Amino acid sequence: MHTGFEIYLKENMQLSDDEIRLIYSFADERKVRRKQVLLQEGGVCRFKIFVCKGLLRTYRTREDGTEHIVQFSPENFWVTEPDSLHNDTPSRYYIDVVEDSEIMFWTKNDFNLLFAQIPRLKYFTERLISRNVTLGRDRIFSAISATPEEKYDEFVQTYPTVFARVPLHMIASYLGLSLKTLSRVRHAQLKR
Amino acid sequence: MHTGFEIYLKENMQLSDDEIRLIYSFADERKVRRKQVLLQEGGVCRFKIFVCKGLLRTYRTREDGTEHIVQFSPENFWVTEPDSLHNDTPSRYYIDVVEDSEIMFWTKNDFNLLFAQIPRLKYFTERLISRNVTLGRDRIFSAISATPEEKYDEFVQTYPTVFARVPLHMIASYLGLSLKTLSRVRHAQLKR
Repeated sequence: MHTGFEIYLKENMQLSDDEIRLIYSFADERKVRRKQVLLQEGGVCRFKIFVCKGLLRTYRTREDGTEHIVQFSPENFWVTEPDSLHNDTPSRYYIDVVEDSEIMFWTKNDFNLLFAQIPRLKYFTERLISRNVTLGRDRIFSAISATPEEKYDEFVQTYPTVFARVPLHMIASYLGLSLKTLSRVRHAQLKR
Repeated sequence: MHTGFEIYLKENMQLSDDEIRLIYSFADERKVRRKQVLLQEGGVCRFKIFVCKGLLRTYRTREDGTEHIVQFSPENFWVTEPDSLHNDTPSRYYIDVVEDSEIMFWTKNDFNLLFAQIPRLKYFTERLISRNVTLGRDRIFSAISATPEEKYDEFVQTYPTVFARVPLHMIASYLGLSLKTLSRVRHAQLKR
């Protein structure tokens, strides 16, 4: 499980071996099973997760019980619920496991200790958060302006490692399309 | 122009008078006119702005020329294009002025100097960015799951000071609705 995360740290943060060992020393390595729930709506998020292998998702339900996926998190993605984590408030989102996965798991306090000792980790995380603001903005732009065909194309490009691994109803949920519309779009794309 | 920003700084960051003076000393206070463009698509964003009075918007165009508003920024909002600012890359977004406005304007370098000297400003900005990630996620959730009626209600609640000040076509652009749909929704709400 180690290797992928080590490569990620070296490539993205140019950390020393000592720093990488420190990050590992605070991490809890876990195997999680498909459909396992890591965060419930109403629970307080107390973790940061790195996905070594597999796929998680973050979703929220409406009052009628429908699930709406705001985030897929495949390999090399970080996962948390920032609002709940920072403010110790109940999460409005669920985080669960789409495929059997291998994850690294840190508590909030341990991660803050790492931040204090590894300035590059802190700096990199800030860049990542700023990048997330941009990706969120891009997704909003897409949601309010794109046709179903464009939304599907953007999804395939943004998540090349995901779209073949998840059932169609999850892609529909992520894109805000009905299953019927998505099936039509996908059928037309396959024929191109 | 000063007073509102001073109150904002004191309420949100508990800064000392010396720190507030320092923030002012780097700021450029400007009056900007309706329709004035502060950032063009393709330009590099080199500023952070605080809106003392008035209203700005951030939008992006599609190839067919349609404008799609991703952000309204009334009084007490910060405005920048984070991706372009941090990476010195061409912006894909426009920022312009919806109402004659009074703004405070800092260059990226000056703001970084302030960060180095005022830890609370840095800390507060981090919280604000994390809050923006959450708001972005909420807006995505709304865009992929809500009915036009719910979208309009959420907009009125999120931007109570904005919805009465902007033309209907801008609200439609922000919500990703056609003008026809929005007019129908609004008409029905007014009759309730």
